[in-house]
Amino acid sequence: MSRLLDNIVGELSRLPGVGRRTALRLAMHILKMDREDVVTMASSISEFREHICHCARCGNLSDSEICEICSDDRRDKSTLCVVEQVSDLLSIEKTRQYRGLYCVLGGVISPMQGVAPSDLRIDLLLDRVALGEVKEVIIAISASVEGETTLFYLMNTLKNFGNIKITTIARGIGFGDELEYVDEHTITQALINRREITGKL
Amino acid sequence: MSRLLDNIVGELSRLPGVGRRTALRLAMHILKMDREDVVTMASSISEFREHICHCARCGNLSDSEICEICSDDRRDKSTLCVVEQVSDLLSIEKTRQYRGLYCVLGGVISPMQGVAPSDLRIDLLLDRVALGEVKEVIIAISASVEGETTLFYLMNTLKNFGNIKITTIARGIGFGDELEYVDEHTITQALINRREITGKL
Repeated sequence: MSRLLDNIVGELSRLPGVGRRTALRLAMHILKMDREDVVTMASSISEFREHICHCARCGNLSDSEICEICSDDRRDKSTLCVVEQVSDLLSIEKTRQYRGLYCVLGGVISPMQGVAPSDLRIDLLLDRVALGEVKEVIIAISASVEGETTLFYLMNTLKNFGNIKITTIARGIGFGDELEYVDEHTITQALINRREITGKL
Repeated sequence: MSRLLDNIVGELSRLPGVGRRTALRLAMHILKMDREDVVTMASSISEFREHICHCARCGNLSDSEICEICSDDRRDKSTLCVVEQVSDLLSIEKTRQYRGLYCVLGGVISPMQGVAPSDLRIDLLLDRVALGEVKEVIIAISASVEGETTLFYLMNTLKNFGNIKITTIARGIGFGDELEYVDEHTITQALINRREITGKL
């Protein structure tokens, strides 16, 4: 087998969800691409790894020390949304509904996986809250056992800062979800949090 | 969104089967990899596109003008196996059973897709056959309509070279395939090509 082909297949199959067969298919596609496009692709990968950093204030991925969201004066500094990872932040940003700031924990507390509170960016959260500007902390963490553990840890820690409203995102039936296939716990929460139909949506 | 993150996600999602969500997941994985490993991966991609070429004799991917298989003196030059694409050649090589040479067509004849015989490496096949060394041509092309068209075209063309044996790979039930789920055409072929059990496998 060609050394160059062997190299690219070996390297691409290190990526998650990419086996040698998929890697070969990707290599065949890359072969058909323009040379310049391939160079651009390859350098986007190495430049990303080389120059990306975590925002010193919120943990978001950033090209510079402070990310675009934290350095945007138009964002509401009184609301802080705590998420597990950068992809969660991006999902929330995509809605264009949230105008506050974030704290990207970088995971959830998990004694089983050896993730302690000190492994997360809880210090960034507390630093920000200590400034006194934050009035509400929205905890948008997944509803797993580890997520709930993290939620209670954060609630206990934030209590010490006095008058801060702590909220979590609503659990309920998603748009397009069929009730038939939704788990009982979610249905229970959706029933408890039912709301009156007021005529306006 | 970070420009570096936007770049890598945009570039990776140009790959087949990779959407923006998968690209983001790959980017997050790349972030966790060692810097050196990422540089190695990126350069394997650009080097592959920059330096790989098709073997001038068989069309296989190669680091140099003539591929490893064609330049291997131990290979049987009297047998030539015609395949559609490089991945087919690699699949046959993996069996370590075939010791002849190849011709990688680079596709199949498809009037619908605008692929004419002149778009394939049929000239390489004929060049080789014209040398007079080849005694058998094994046509290992997929059993689609286009594949069959290509098979008949090749048979007609090769007829002009006189005494060459032309064979195709056997169609039949694969190991582990359940008869229940195999298509009728394959079962028909498997019945026609049934063989007597001789006591030795």
